[in-house]
Amino acid sequence: MLQPKDKVAIYMEGHLESDFGKMGFGAVRYLTNDIVAVIDSAQAGREMSNFMDTSRSIPVVNSVEESIALGAEVLLLGIAPVGGKIPDFWYETLDKAIDSGVSLINGLHDLLAPRYEGRMKQNWVWDVRVPQFIPAIGSARALEHQGKRILCVGTDNAVGKMTAGLELYRGLLKQNRSAGFVATGQIGITVTGGGIPLDAFKVDYATGAVETAVLEQADKDYIIIEGQGSLLNPSSTATLPLMRGSCPTHLILCMRGDKTTLRSNTQIKIPNLREFIALNESLASVCGTYPDAKVVAIAVNTSMFSEADAQLVKERITAESGVPAFDPVRDGVQGLIECL
Amino acid sequence: MLQPKDKVAIYMEGHLESDFGKMGFGAVRYLTNDIVAVIDSAQAGREMSNFMDTSRSIPVVNSVEESIALGAEVLLLGIAPVGGKIPDFWYETLDKAIDSGVSLINGLHDLLAPRYEGRMKQNWVWDVRVPQFIPAIGSARALEHQGKRILCVGTDNAVGKMTAGLELYRGLLKQNRSAGFVATGQIGITVTGGGIPLDAFKVDYATGAVETAVLEQADKDYIIIEGQGSLLNPSSTATLPLMRGSCPTHLILCMRGDKTTLRSNTQIKIPNLREFIALNESLASVCGTYPDAKVVAIAVNTSMFSEADAQLVKERITAESGVPAFDPVRDGVQGLIECL
Repeated sequence: MLQPKDKVAIYMEGHLESDFGKMGFGAVRYLTNDIVAVIDSAQAGREMSNFMDTSRSIPVVNSVEESIALGAEVLLLGIAPVGGKIPDFWYETLDKAIDSGVSLINGLHDLLAPRYEGRMKQNWVWDVRVPQFIPAIGSARALEHQGKRILCVGTDNAVGKMTAGLELYRGLLKQNRSAGFVATGQIGITVTGGGIPLDAFKVDYATGAVETAVLEQADKDYIIIEGQGSLLNPSSTATLPLMRGSCPTHLILCMRGDKTTLRSNTQIKIPNLREFIALNESLASVCGTYPDAKVVAIAVNTSMFSEADAQLVKERITAESGVPAFDPVRDGVQGLIECL
Repeated sequence: MLQPKDKVAIYMEGHLESDFGKMGFGAVRYLTNDIVAVIDSAQAGREMSNFMDTSRSIPVVNSVEESIALGAEVLLLGIAPVGGKIPDFWYETLDKAIDSGVSLINGLHDLLAPRYEGRMKQNWVWDVRVPQFIPAIGSARALEHQGKRILCVGTDNAVGKMTAGLELYRGLLKQNRSAGFVATGQIGITVTGGGIPLDAFKVDYATGAVETAVLEQADKDYIIIEGQGSLLNPSSTATLPLMRGSCPTHLILCMRGDKTTLRSNTQIKIPNLREFIALNESLASVCGTYPDAKVVAIAVNTSMFSEADAQLVKERITAESGVPAFDPVRDGVQGLIECL
């Protein structure tokens, strides 16, 4: 699959300015491979630093051919439409990539390996969202781990749970702490090379898959479990297998600073934070049956605000919730680490 | 698949006295087809009425051959091991059945259709647990239904959620109410011929599958949604997609009268009922975002008690929970219906 020396292009056609491009932005932030180009014909000629806070110099180009001219060996699909289906018009680009010897990394539910079987040479297709094992049924074995298990929960999908988790993980490693990261979504798996595609497991196996992935890190003092979805969002029910599979000792609530409703179901308002935190905590502990995990900090995405406004947003959230709020990208994670 | 005139035998080898035979007992209770025999060599010569409260006369026999001699055309696997895997030693019996022209109904995760492809004549294999569609992603569309949506939740797996739901459904129909039943597990699907195998759907599709099945019954005044699992049980996370997919207006808590712990994880105690009810209610409503569904009644399985002891158990549970308790099999469902 992906090797450290492979040069990567990211397909973001039409989505450099939407918030469905989180796979692409996550790869720019966390993938350690060379990224030679981002493809979005609507923004060609610009730089990725025009669209996100990054010190990497990555040109936006028109087409897969242009990215190949820049050395691309692997094309990563950087867009995650709701439901995980591949739009038909992408196939022209994907066919060209495969026929030019470029490999594909695909994090959507629709699989590409079957389409390109027999059509590849040295190149390959990595369908990140295919479960690699059938786990034992969950039985709360995560409790065997003696350290801290930190689960990121959210007010919604796509609010920064993976970012908070990866920043915290990198911060702990920088301080030479013994830390592990359990990726549970396609981006986390792609950038870390491990973990489980939780939402592609059967409901019956979901807890066991999380439990297995957590126990693989059982020698670490801190295990960060990447969050998925939200108890509030009707499209997502991953929070419960994450809780039962990881038996968290600490929760971090992740949210965007600018949203008062869900992103895709705008009729659903974000509830009072104290009440929403209490719900997450009571579901994690089930009347004292599981560890009494508290929301020890809130990770707020304030990237859409000025420094001064971001400060106000964090103060408002802390006042409303009674829990300290940080932007892990803007502020670093020292504050989060001190809350653990 | 299964036709009303088909004669059925039930495979219960070694499990007539365990509580892993709920598929078999459920079929005896609710399947309207003729049931000509139950296979369990450990109990051969006895009658099903020795093992459960039933007015049906069904002999227990030694082997699939004996059931065929009694007219069996379909063999239903009546045992549901945790995790849904088929033990190797069953295959000798299943092979014999298929080669004798008998059809199979299989509710386990392991599939039988691929094994017997090309080996069948007029007979067939129905793998009940194979999802039949990919749903739209859940978006709380169950709220479009204007009537009552009644979800059965539980203190554990296998405590009587399907039984409570089916008894309530039959009771409503007997009173000429407009009622629908959404089967969500293999037994409910087998005996009603409809519904969804919830635990075999991918996590990402689980809510949408429930939502789709609920909306198919949207013309009914009462929709009963079969419950699965429990918020308390680490092996099961089906409660959350059931809640988000059905947006219940009423909850019924189902439990066994004799258990103080989970069945398969005996280190986990059943919590205080008031607290556990409050947790289920707060997860259903999410701080007022979804309907404020209350646990309006408790359905208690008291089959292991005498009439007098059952009465005491129900009184104790009502006192502890503050909610009226009924045994829907023993007492009928008039009391439950009055709570709606």
